[in-house]
Amino acid sequence: MLLLTVDEQSLEPIYRQIVAQIRDKIAGRVLLPGERLPSTRRLADQLGIHRSTVATAYQELWALGFIDLSPGSRPRVRDRMQFATAADRGDKGLVDWQTVVSPASEAVWRTYRRLDPLGKESTPALINFASMNMDSRLFPLESFRACLDRAVKNHGDALLGYGARAGFPPLREYIARRLQSHGISVTADEILITNGSQQGIDLVFRMIAAPGKTVAIESPTYDYVLPLLRFYGLRPVEIPIRQGGMDLGALAAAIAQERPVLVYTMPTFQNPTGISTGQAHRERLLSLCEQHRIPILEDGFEEEMKYSGRVVLPIKSMDKRQLVIYCGTFSKVLFPGARVGWLAAEKECVERLVAIHRFSELAPSMILQAAIHEFCQSGHYDRHIGRMHRAYRKRMQTAVRALSRHIDPAWAEWTEPSGGFLIWLKLKPAPHPPPDWKTLLAAHGVEATTGGSFFYGETPDTYLRLSISPLNEEEITEGVRRLAAALRQAHHPD
Amino acid sequence: MLLLTVDEQSLEPIYRQIVAQIRDKIAGRVLLPGERLPSTRRLADQLGIHRSTVATAYQELWALGFIDLSPGSRPRVRDRMQFATAADRGDKGLVDWQTVVSPASEAVWRTYRRLDPLGKESTPALINFASMNMDSRLFPLESFRACLDRAVKNHGDALLGYGARAGFPPLREYIARRLQSHGISVTADEILITNGSQQGIDLVFRMIAAPGKTVAIESPTYDYVLPLLRFYGLRPVEIPIRQGGMDLGALAAAIAQERPVLVYTMPTFQNPTGISTGQAHRERLLSLCEQHRIPILEDGFEEEMKYSGRVVLPIKSMDKRQLVIYCGTFSKVLFPGARVGWLAAEKECVERLVAIHRFSELAPSMILQAAIHEFCQSGHYDRHIGRMHRAYRKRMQTAVRALSRHIDPAWAEWTEPSGGFLIWLKLKPAPHPPPDWKTLLAAHGVEATTGGSFFYGETPDTYLRLSISPLNEEEITEGVRRLAAALRQAHHPD
Repeated sequence: MLLLTVDEQSLEPIYRQIVAQIRDKIAGRVLLPGERLPSTRRLADQLGIHRSTVATAYQELWALGFIDLSPGSRPRVRDRMQFATAADRGDKGLVDWQTVVSPASEAVWRTYRRLDPLGKESTPALINFASMNMDSRLFPLESFRACLDRAVKNHGDALLGYGARAGFPPLREYIARRLQSHGISVTADEILITNGSQQGIDLVFRMIAAPGKTVAIESPTYDYVLPLLRFYGLRPVEIPIRQGGMDLGALAAAIAQERPVLVYTMPTFQNPTGISTGQAHRERLLSLCEQHRIPILEDGFEEEMKYSGRVVLPIKSMDKRQLVIYCGTFSKVLFPGARVGWLAAEKECVERLVAIHRFSELAPSMILQAAIHEFCQSGHYDRHIGRMHRAYRKRMQTAVRALSRHIDPAWAEWTEPSGGFLIWLKLKPAPHPPPDWKTLLAAHGVEATTGGSFFYGETPDTYLRLSISPLNEEEITEGVRRLAAALRQAHHPD
Repeated sequence: MLLLTVDEQSLEPIYRQIVAQIRDKIAGRVLLPGERLPSTRRLADQLGIHRSTVATAYQELWALGFIDLSPGSRPRVRDRMQFATAADRGDKGLVDWQTVVSPASEAVWRTYRRLDPLGKESTPALINFASMNMDSRLFPLESFRACLDRAVKNHGDALLGYGARAGFPPLREYIARRLQSHGISVTADEILITNGSQQGIDLVFRMIAAPGKTVAIESPTYDYVLPLLRFYGLRPVEIPIRQGGMDLGALAAAIAQERPVLVYTMPTFQNPTGISTGQAHRERLLSLCEQHRIPILEDGFEEEMKYSGRVVLPIKSMDKRQLVIYCGTFSKVLFPGARVGWLAAEKECVERLVAIHRFSELAPSMILQAAIHEFCQSGHYDRHIGRMHRAYRKRMQTAVRALSRHIDPAWAEWTEPSGGFLIWLKLKPAPHPPPDWKTLLAAHGVEATTGGSFFYGETPDTYLRLSISPLNEEEITEGVRRLAAALRQAHHPD
């Protein structure tokens, strides 16, 4: 006889008490596979409960796979496949993922493990010139919190659905107006909201990727673009970057030889070099691409951070023939965690990108977009940009002054950028260059990004990229002092 | 002589007044390319202002490309490339996007235009059985708003950076605990937060996609998965779905012949059929895949919506050998606009997916994740699920009752699902089937999704998928009445 008890005072429903006890008996091998359980009538009588309660318990045990039910016969204990517990999982499962994934995916995985990914825990004691995070001390979080709350209050239910495919319409309207202040004339339906500008770049690459296609890129370029190109099987054609920007003679030659399907460029505060091109360079680049009908992906990731006063307008501002896909972001002014960026391009191009985005993740979340829109349209965004300009103008001056004071010209050279957050140090040959700059820098209490990751081919690490974005003046000054000590050691070890 | 005026009372800085006037004169062809402007000294004297103000204006005009500057000579008006205005943009730019994009991307674009995308404006007068949006009338928006506010207040700055690569750690912890209630034992580091479950599926496909690879799918299957497979060049092997789930005999044969690299399945409330498989089917499917070391992508998109009482646990709950990649979402319980889903898989697999995600969009936004975590851990999530179960149990009963009452068995057949939102109608041959069901339904004031989009090959639209997710009981009853009227017309036109 099956010994079960029920407690009618318990909060646990009676049928669940029965399920739990029978499960335990099966797990404890008190009930063995093949054994019969009592009929519903019999068990109900025995426990003094309603027959339907037993039936419910048996249904649940059947659904969970512990018993077999067949009409007209008593339930039978099943030889159920066991639950997987934490203890079951060894270090390695059955699947050899390397054989399952694509070669491109395997390569990205290897790159990922080699690079220091963004978001890596940095050692608090080190002064961090490697991070591109913004200094959150400058961000008016309380105002943003109020905007977030107001956005949900005002738009309510409208934010709960999948929402507009290309993004929250009022934010697209705002961005279109905002772009006008950079000389760009586009309408809201030429704008697609993305999860940061990185997703914009990813979508453009996904749209064009096919075997044998090439993309012209600046060399060096943004380190996170290189693994993406590799992943999508797009072959990069590296165009060297000079003091004035991408070498346009080299680009013309590359166009003739390699027929790139896209030119990727950061004309303003290029990452990693900090170089901005002049008006004439932008015109020549646009003319060259117009002549060959090659779309340009213009990455304006730090467009808003022109704090030096001299404003060169984006290439997109002259784009009558609609071959420029412009990508922008709120990450480099507000905060990276916003994950809101945008693409502005010919309407057909935007719609093609929407189609890819649609099937790959349906739509961007409306709530953050509505909050950012609230922040922008209530004037907080403009005020914040003003604050950022004042702060970073001083910080960049501090950085350049400290570099001039502490770094011997025999150790490194650099150019003062007219905005943004990046300084690119070209290291001079040292009599005893360290095998690993990262280690030497860490030993002196400072972090920076070594140059190799910004080149497609293997390149000796003869550059350092300094980002001042997360640091205040005091930290910058101390950081440069530590950097100088590391360079001194490479040049004058004793 | 260059005629300019300055207004020292104006809010506009003087240098900007000069810039604006010279720009206007160039635009109006008062100043022609090649013409010389006065020296800074001369113009400063003329206007009675400081020379450096003129120099600043000239610097800005140079940066904007309106003049050339060279040391020792007067500025010269440049033949600047003009701004692109809205009027310049015709319907078509210079680029023929069809030649730029990949064939896969072209195909997705064509599919996108053919399908009715989610988020499409639906005609308010129609009763909408096509949308998978949740009924936002059930969502406790005020509680969520408070959680959002509290999350930003409590976590503050920590939400502003790029954040943890695989998602907000406390939310990953919560999901791991929550999955235990579905019998799944995983740790937080086996979880990757995604922008809805669609992005989870996209990432898995991207991880494996390589020419010649095949994926076994149920037929019919989730319509948004088919274009993705096509986009990534993955060839689907269609396994027919029977009353009890995917035909495992057919799957075994397909594995032998086609060597799929992945099996994609929705064991619970399958989309579009609403079918749930039993425990025994799940065990056999898992054993079969273990035997051939083929990973399973288990889509548990409506796992939480088991309101019938009988609970079959996910395949992942038995996954000792770690070949199941489980994907889940908050969209089908909270609201789709949340765009928060997750993947749970072997740690190495999660890390490989993080690598792809990292380069394609850096990281998911922390703010919404923190808000959802706050909503979950403060008990709102459980209460909301309870509310949803009660509501949809009644709504599904209402739907099934209305179907039985109004739809003649000669017109269509269907099975009552034990949860979720979907009912799959198999239409019987009609003497005068409409050339287009969508049009006939719309004429009767109702919308539903026709079956063709759920099959990979071309299939006559002999199915309708009804989603009750956005509708209350009254709307469901009226909707079924209208549907019946449409079917009646197809069978008895007069």
